[in-house]
Amino acid sequence: MRFEHVTLGQRVRFGTGLAAENLAAEVDRLGARRVLLIAEDGIAPEVTSKIHVTAHCTDVAPHVPVGHAERARALAAESEADLLVSVGGGSTTGLAKAVALTTGLPIVAVPTTYAGSEATNVWGLTEASRKTTGSDDRILPVTVVYDAALTASLPPELSIASGCNALAHCVDSMWAPRTDPINQALALAGIRALSSGLRLIGDVEGRELMFHGTYLAAVAFASAGSGLHHKICHVLGGAYDLPHARTHTAILPYVLAFNAPAAPRAADGITEALGTELTTLYSEIGASHVLHGVPDAAEAARLILPAVPPSNPRPVTEDDLTALLAAASAGRDPREWSRA
Amino acid sequence: MRFEHVTLGQRVRFGTGLAAENLAAEVDRLGARRVLLIAEDGIAPEVTSKIHVTAHCTDVAPHVPVGHAERARALAAESEADLLVSVGGGSTTGLAKAVALTTGLPIVAVPTTYAGSEATNVWGLTEASRKTTGSDDRILPVTVVYDAALTASLPPELSIASGCNALAHCVDSMWAPRTDPINQALALAGIRALSSGLRLIGDVEGRELMFHGTYLAAVAFASAGSGLHHKICHVLGGAYDLPHARTHTAILPYVLAFNAPAAPRAADGITEALGTELTTLYSEIGASHVLHGVPDAAEAARLILPAVPPSNPRPVTEDDLTALLAAASAGRDPREWSRA
Repeated sequence: MRFEHVTLGQRVRFGTGLAAENLAAEVDRLGARRVLLIAEDGIAPEVTSKIHVTAHCTDVAPHVPVGHAERARALAAESEADLLVSVGGGSTTGLAKAVALTTGLPIVAVPTTYAGSEATNVWGLTEASRKTTGSDDRILPVTVVYDAALTASLPPELSIASGCNALAHCVDSMWAPRTDPINQALALAGIRALSSGLRLIGDVEGRELMFHGTYLAAVAFASAGSGLHHKICHVLGGAYDLPHARTHTAILPYVLAFNAPAAPRAADGITEALGTELTTLYSEIGASHVLHGVPDAAEAARLILPAVPPSNPRPVTEDDLTALLAAASAGRDPREWSRA
Repeated sequence: MRFEHVTLGQRVRFGTGLAAENLAAEVDRLGARRVLLIAEDGIAPEVTSKIHVTAHCTDVAPHVPVGHAERARALAAESEADLLVSVGGGSTTGLAKAVALTTGLPIVAVPTTYAGSEATNVWGLTEASRKTTGSDDRILPVTVVYDAALTASLPPELSIASGCNALAHCVDSMWAPRTDPINQALALAGIRALSSGLRLIGDVEGRELMFHGTYLAAVAFASAGSGLHHKICHVLGGAYDLPHARTHTAILPYVLAFNAPAAPRAADGITEALGTELTTLYSEIGASHVLHGVPDAAEAARLILPAVPPSNPRPVTEDDLTALLAAASAGRDPREWSRA
């Protein structure tokens, strides 16, 4: 047991129906006077009803295209913002991080999905179909305001996909490059909360569990780094402009099935924390492991191979990746595929 | 589910037999040039063999008497220290924190017991038999260096008591004033590691699990705050100068038995994470629930009552406390006592 573990300092304010109140308390605590709000049109009026917003950037797009980041940075400068408030999913939080990266402005993040970006120091930018990611402690939101009422309007299918994306943070943390017993403990706790939450996602209690699990998942992931699953999804997302959460949802069971024989302790821990096999949970909650939008598995495998972490518990060849993507695109049973 | 959770940023370097190397790497990373070493005589030479020590304070005593703190602060000023390095148990880390509290100096902590003080922002000072505690984020050690080789020489009985002290951080976190689902998840993960570690404490693997669990326990405790158990032990420790770890070990099963009926979910989680009843674990590992050194249970109860957290899941009267301390002093079976 030898590792270096870094815990990032952060505040969480958690309360259903309390987003506006908790956001106002944070703006006040931080002494901010000029808030740049980053939120798609129509998303944030209620949440920001108790604060003064100086400028509002609505120009949010998946995978944070560089042009969008530059326009948001210009708006931050023009408006002399002293605080970024993001209200939205991973793309929105990601845009706020892109602004923080060059301006050093603090972020208060109000998530509306289970993307988890709010609790990581990871940023991503996409230019010419290539997604670049990096990490920088200064872009970690100072505070996260979680309000399960904000996910009530998320369509069920997207809730499930977003929740499986959170689950992927936990699963991948079990064998990511900086995996250690501390982030593994957080990841397993995250799986416990998420697997309960996913089964109850129609209820407030379930959605509270989802945010609780999302946070643990993201903290584990920020500490452990990107494993095989995230490297695959990042490359696919940048190259083919795929929907983030659904792509993660589709890929996860195949990566788990691929790595499990080489990481039996991690796999057992995951199954125990899920309370069942991942594929069984998928059936129960109606999650889809069918990958859409990858036109050429062999081409995608070539793009992914250089990004595969050398520390992955099972060696990965280009053929393995081609086979994995072909099986996912065909929607084959992940367990059958891995046994073949 | 409504809470505010603050995670404190900290670095952990974990490696058996690597304390000297990891400590040197940290002193280097922090750019420190004048180290004040706080460690009892004879404890630290090997650990500090790869760094330059400018001054050495050996004047460590349980519960950090104010006079000791003042002498250590004077030494920090005289030696123009720019970094505090503590090597020892909770009293040693506590003395370093007392110095950090007034000087603002950073701490690198190298624990040699499972006290967990290295991962909390809690300080304590004792004057005239009264222990004052408080919390201040600036005294949280910047880095913790864990090396399971350093606990190899801890006598078995003290290892067990120190480990049960760590366990108490987890158990009390389940109902402490700022308990929340996040610190509860950390606490339960800590219990899992500690209950495995306690059973294997003679082996390196067991002692690695102990430090891993100690860290999770302390992080949970720092976040959740002091519950009934810690309030009882702090008052007793200050008033009667009792041995810290053994007192915590003795009190814990009685507090758990007292609170369990009013907090069944927490109690079930604790038992599940322990893999058995706490009293059964105590028998297995030879931990003692017999309290020594409290001459007058009724007097002690009077001292403790004002410190009892109003949020404790079960209301606590002076008579309850007298009965608890009398039962612990007589070493009665904690389960029988609570049923009576």
